[in-house]
Amino acid sequence: MKLHSANNYNYKYSNRGMGLEADINASNEYYLNNDKAVIYKKPTPITINKVNYHSRSDALITEAHFNTPSTTDYNGVYKGRYIDFEAKETKNKTSFPLNNIHAHQIEHIRKITKLGGIGFIIVRFTTLDETYYLSSDKLLSFIDNKTRKSIPLDYFREKGHLIKHKLRPLVDYLEYVDKYIKEG
Amino acid sequence: MKLHSANNYNYKYSNRGMGLEADINASNEYYLNNDKAVIYKKPTPITINKVNYHSRSDALITEAHFNTPSTTDYNGVYKGRYIDFEAKETKNKTSFPLNNIHAHQIEHIRKITKLGGIGFIIVRFTTLDETYYLSSDKLLSFIDNKTRKSIPLDYFREKGHLIKHKLRPLVDYLEYVDKYIKEG
Repeated sequence: MKLHSANNYNYKYSNRGMGLEADINASNEYYLNNDKAVIYKKPTPITINKVNYHSRSDALITEAHFNTPSTTDYNGVYKGRYIDFEAKETKNKTSFPLNNIHAHQIEHIRKITKLGGIGFIIVRFTTLDETYYLSSDKLLSFIDNKTRKSIPLDYFREKGHLIKHKLRPLVDYLEYVDKYIKEG
Repeated sequence: MKLHSANNYNYKYSNRGMGLEADINASNEYYLNNDKAVIYKKPTPITINKVNYHSRSDALITEAHFNTPSTTDYNGVYKGRYIDFEAKETKNKTSFPLNNIHAHQIEHIRKITKLGGIGFIIVRFTTLDETYYLSSDKLLSFIDNKTRKSIPLDYFREKGHLIKHKLRPLVDYLEYVDKYIKEG
């Protein structure tokens, strides 16, 4: 029997995001090993219904289900600042459907931005093999000013940053966080 | 059948920390509702072995077990800064046994502190009804300089802060984070 960690389980079974998620996890590991940033993917939130509790080290969960996440998947610290983001893949070639991000995740991004945290989304257009960084202020201004239910690719191209292909780390999103910090 | 969220499950069954954890969760909710800070307890890390996957909204986990956490339980943002801490209760009246905190959690606190994050532990001596805030630098200097396997209560009293009893929020730990920020 092959084991799946809670972190990658959802993606595996829903057949989405595995590539980008794996790339970001590897990048986070690179940042961690090079003392650059400490950023982790949060465990998948679940509700536990039944447990066989033999001992502290031998508890077996026998019934549980997945919860809707109320925050984003990734957070951590870089240069003392609070970093918080969501990463998503889409097969769509022209836009990113906003229903990929839950409403309370958007509200979470709004709150952490208001409190001085650095929030953003990373979106990979898998068919184009293009990955974009979009800061929370650009994301929120789109959501607050438009009635469209998807963000056009052009918006990412104009307001965001195309993340360059690299070997180490694979998805060097902190490069764009640096830009964001410099621009204030 | 009563449902338990993954967040409080461990504590309930291990009969530890429920009081302090509930107090901190309520305090975090107060901070959140008052736009003061966004700080959450992370979901309990688990490994999922078996799932009945009928549909995306109807996946039932039928076998899983708890993982050892590699980070602390709580993190978030306050005044743009990264906040990261662990909260523990002890029935011990004279010291806090360090085996309550996993070695990799200590290393996590060391790393986030090095990167400018604000780390600390909150320890409640339940028998005394005293709750202490101890900053990561004081925690790490104890660990690095002593050979003792528990932190004496006196160390908390001298190097930490006794958290005052309050109604809102119940455990106002940000008061001591403010002190820490002011003192640089």
